[in-house]
Amino acid sequence: MFYIEGVRHVGEAILNDFPLEYIIYSPELLTADYGQEILAIASTKKIDLIQVTSDIFNSFSMKEGPHGIAAVGHEKYFTLNDVEIKGLWIALENIQDPGNMGSIMRSLDGAGGKGVILIGDSTDPYHPTAVRSSTGAIFYLPIIKSTITEFIRYKNRTSIFCAGSSCHSNTSFKEVDYPNSMVLVMGSEQKGITEIIERECDVLVNIPMAGKVDSLNLANAASIVLFEIYTRRIKT
Amino acid sequence: MFYIEGVRHVGEAILNDFPLEYIIYSPELLTADYGQEILAIASTKKIDLIQVTSDIFNSFSMKEGPHGIAAVGHEKYFTLNDVEIKGLWIALENIQDPGNMGSIMRSLDGAGGKGVILIGDSTDPYHPTAVRSSTGAIFYLPIIKSTITEFIRYKNRTSIFCAGSSCHSNTSFKEVDYPNSMVLVMGSEQKGITEIIERECDVLVNIPMAGKVDSLNLANAASIVLFEIYTRRIKT
Repeated sequence: MFYIEGVRHVGEAILNDFPLEYIIYSPELLTADYGQEILAIASTKKIDLIQVTSDIFNSFSMKEGPHGIAAVGHEKYFTLNDVEIKGLWIALENIQDPGNMGSIMRSLDGAGGKGVILIGDSTDPYHPTAVRSSTGAIFYLPIIKSTITEFIRYKNRTSIFCAGSSCHSNTSFKEVDYPNSMVLVMGSEQKGITEIIERECDVLVNIPMAGKVDSLNLANAASIVLFEIYTRRIKT
Repeated sequence: MFYIEGVRHVGEAILNDFPLEYIIYSPELLTADYGQEILAIASTKKIDLIQVTSDIFNSFSMKEGPHGIAAVGHEKYFTLNDVEIKGLWIALENIQDPGNMGSIMRSLDGAGGKGVILIGDSTDPYHPTAVRSSTGAIFYLPIIKSTITEFIRYKNRTSIFCAGSSCHSNTSFKEVDYPNSMVLVMGSEQKGITEIIERECDVLVNIPMAGKVDSLNLANAASIVLFEIYTRRIKT
């Protein structure tokens, strides 16, 4: 289970029928009209509502100036057998930073993407920082958990097109034709994707760079490639 | 003055002749060869070296598993009168998040950008989070501080091309011709750029989006536009 705080995020969870264990709120703090609406919707969905004083709410709140509403949700994961990979997906291998995880989901949704595959040992997508930086995308984009072996087996079975982002590539992300259904595969900033996953990719791409920095922030790099793919799709 | 920690960042500061007040290090913790090299270079540059025990170092360190080297530097700001705006620059108006500030500088450097203009009341670029997420770019990209009035005066005097990112625009960032010398102007995620700055821009652009999210993370958005500009430049 995981913790969700604030009218916006609890609202997104409710509106997307995300499985919640209960909502906890403080009437003194929850003054926004939207907060009242959320409570009304939650009660029609038979989610437990726990009322507390502002002192109690402040004692566990992770925000400065809390909105007075939080929830506890059930982490939701799929496997590669549950979901059909159609459209644009992203696979993240062994990524470490929950802020990047969340903002990649936000960008993926903005780029018309359909879901996320976590390969190997990645950071918790339900970490409060990831939830916050996803600005709600975590509540409606499916998250698949996969081992390296499961991913390779899936790739061999379905032949889904995989474009891996790799500093070993000499091909710019601009030079590649991306099919409609595909997985963009990215690894951690330090290590990139593993060799074994690189070998499974149909193409490896890099982002050409100037300057002295030797890499980009992972979420920035993912967003650059995702929006290259998306803006080409809407053009044609 | 501001705090810098870790071999990589102290090293970047030294190698870029960034003004440092002193370096503080703990021989027990500073075991990396590169750390010894930094100390050697620092002593040729007549920077004060303060040696402390590992207990003292750990008492102020902001890292888990500290490298045993930190420095105190002098914040360095320019004005619009000091520096000529040539090539690709970014202007950030009233932005709030130091992590975004740093990773935008990292992306700007990667996209061949030349410097940053902070308009209005933006977050501290020398905040430890900004320094860390810049991965060193903060030590070699000039940072200009400007009021709105100063920026408008500069724009009127030099006619530098300004492309503003705005949700009020119907023009995709893909559809615009960007001249060689230009300023990409971006505001905060919540408020965007102010109307008064929007009016000064030669063009306003948006990033077309699908999905349910109503905006992108600021650093992701900046990176998408910066690399569109950069990859066009290296193609021609």
